[in-house]
Amino acid sequence: MSLAALEVLRFERPVLHVLDQALLPGEERWLAIRSLDELTEAIGSLRVRGAPLLGLCGAAGVALAAEVDAGEANLRLAAKRVGAVRPTAVELASGATACLRAVLAVPEMARAAAAWDFCAGYLERRRAEDLALATHGVAVMPRGDVLTHCNTGTLATGGVGTALGVIRAAFEAGRIERCYVTETRPLLQGARLTTWELLRSGIPAVLLPDAAAAALLFSGVVAAVITGADRIASNGDTANKVGTLGLALAAARVGVPFFVAAPTSTVDPGCASGGEIPIEFRAPEEVGGFGGQRWAPGGIAAWNPAFDVTPGELITGIITELGVVEPPYGERLAALTERGRWEGVHG
Amino acid sequence: MSLAALEVLRFERPVLHVLDQALLPGEERWLAIRSLDELTEAIGSLRVRGAPLLGLCGAAGVALAAEVDAGEANLRLAAKRVGAVRPTAVELASGATACLRAVLAVPEMARAAAAWDFCAGYLERRRAEDLALATHGVAVMPRGDVLTHCNTGTLATGGVGTALGVIRAAFEAGRIERCYVTETRPLLQGARLTTWELLRSGIPAVLLPDAAAAALLFSGVVAAVITGADRIASNGDTANKVGTLGLALAAARVGVPFFVAAPTSTVDPGCASGGEIPIEFRAPEEVGGFGGQRWAPGGIAAWNPAFDVTPGELITGIITELGVVEPPYGERLAALTERGRWEGVHG
Repeated sequence: MSLAALEVLRFERPVLHVLDQALLPGEERWLAIRSLDELTEAIGSLRVRGAPLLGLCGAAGVALAAEVDAGEANLRLAAKRVGAVRPTAVELASGATACLRAVLAVPEMARAAAAWDFCAGYLERRRAEDLALATHGVAVMPRGDVLTHCNTGTLATGGVGTALGVIRAAFEAGRIERCYVTETRPLLQGARLTTWELLRSGIPAVLLPDAAAAALLFSGVVAAVITGADRIASNGDTANKVGTLGLALAAARVGVPFFVAAPTSTVDPGCASGGEIPIEFRAPEEVGGFGGQRWAPGGIAAWNPAFDVTPGELITGIITELGVVEPPYGERLAALTERGRWEGVHG
Repeated sequence: MSLAALEVLRFERPVLHVLDQALLPGEERWLAIRSLDELTEAIGSLRVRGAPLLGLCGAAGVALAAEVDAGEANLRLAAKRVGAVRPTAVELASGATACLRAVLAVPEMARAAAAWDFCAGYLERRRAEDLALATHGVAVMPRGDVLTHCNTGTLATGGVGTALGVIRAAFEAGRIERCYVTETRPLLQGARLTTWELLRSGIPAVLLPDAAAAALLFSGVVAAVITGADRIASNGDTANKVGTLGLALAAARVGVPFFVAAPTSTVDPGCASGGEIPIEFRAPEEVGGFGGQRWAPGGIAAWNPAFDVTPGELITGIITELGVVEPPYGERLAALTERGRWEGVHG
């Protein structure tokens, strides 16, 4: 498969170039990041986001620090600092730690170069993993239009993406004609980012309010639903962006297949079922407004979980870089996850 | 029951006073409407909205016109003009027609006074109908917190409302402590209007993204869901603000009762099932932005139905001003609807 990659991040020693996602889709501006301070600002203000992409940024933090002082103390401090900017995004810290481990294995004078090499290799492995996942996904996607949620594309992973990578590959294979995408309140990643990626990829995109998704599924125009995942329990229960559960319920009711696309690293073998997955609740201010605009009365209370948990029994298949797992999950998912730990992107 | 009515519309011959809903919740400003032109502007720019409230405005159009010229030709023209401002809002035209019929029965010099009397009586009947519905609703609502969608309160009907009237009555009866309300994209009636009414009524309100409703229901904190209805088919299938279907699916899955609250005039005996209810699709521009702000790429296609249809089998009960109907709907709903036609608010 040769999906032309959208580019959202580039390593050019001694500069990390990233597309400023906070300005999308209105403006496509690249940031040239030359220091750890500039990187932490960009991460903290969501100019780069998406768990897998943050893993790459974590590694870049060590590379940027090594340009100034490649001593072990400074590099450890840098890895710690970058990981702390968004503590719930575990891949940010794990990307930094993986890069740190690699560069501490070489002499101090070779560390800066080694760090940039690690970043480049990391991005290559990420791209390969996404492509493998997309290839497995295309094989199981039914012909017809597809519905997705949130952003799971290049903007999120640096590769072709997970669910959106499958959609792009299925489009190039002529299996889908159109992609429906939910707005994804409250942060509107579907409306702002996925639409932008679809249009840039030449895929006809149709936006809908989150509340209209059940009606769309009942209308019969959609052949499949596919989303990403933030964490998958051993039994297949899947935590993903809030709203996923509602899509799965409506899809199950009308018999439309519902797929989850995520690398095996998303499976948490220590988590037996969805009830054990901790759910992050975000600031109430995100609800009742967007950007500088507010439409709800000031001080209104809000219930704002970042994720919901979809029971594994509602999931038709989990698409990974190593193949597609179908129910019953349990042992099948465990076997693939174990293989993934040996072949994983962190090398 | 003595629910203190919020006031959103007042007839003071020769002036119609309405609360400007386009400015809520940021500002509470009353408009003094003294002419048919001012009325059609207010309706067209959604300063007044909500099907039942528009019925009252339709009647007021005839009263305003009668102040200038109470001749039959002018009054017929006025009724036609006001009804045409929002052609899909059938109650706007039917309110105007009902008032027209009443005033044409009296001599020309008495018509203006008769029109204002009709309006006042219409509002009184509306309030009585809402209170009767709320009383029936309280009797079937389980104890515990409640979830609702869109706006179904005083701002929509002029009385205490339908679903929101039940919620207010249940709160005053000590049966509920808290009301969860969805934002209701794309026009955000839940976030802007229902929150305002709940806060003004002293009811603790919690706002949530539409996409989070399934997770809320799965979390177990909600004892019941209640929404309004725009049209109900003979078999109980119910068209209501898009998003209602998703709430009903999630409620059914976890065994939470799902109620529809609407006057018997909402039942369409000519409509055998939900498949026959025409669904209005609205402008794509409503999706991907709000007010002056846009967050989706320009020119993006959108799927924007105003309503969805919830199968009657997912509805625990339909609460009307004449009592609560439980499944199987069919004959039971028909009997109540027939009674409603003889006792109806249009007199």
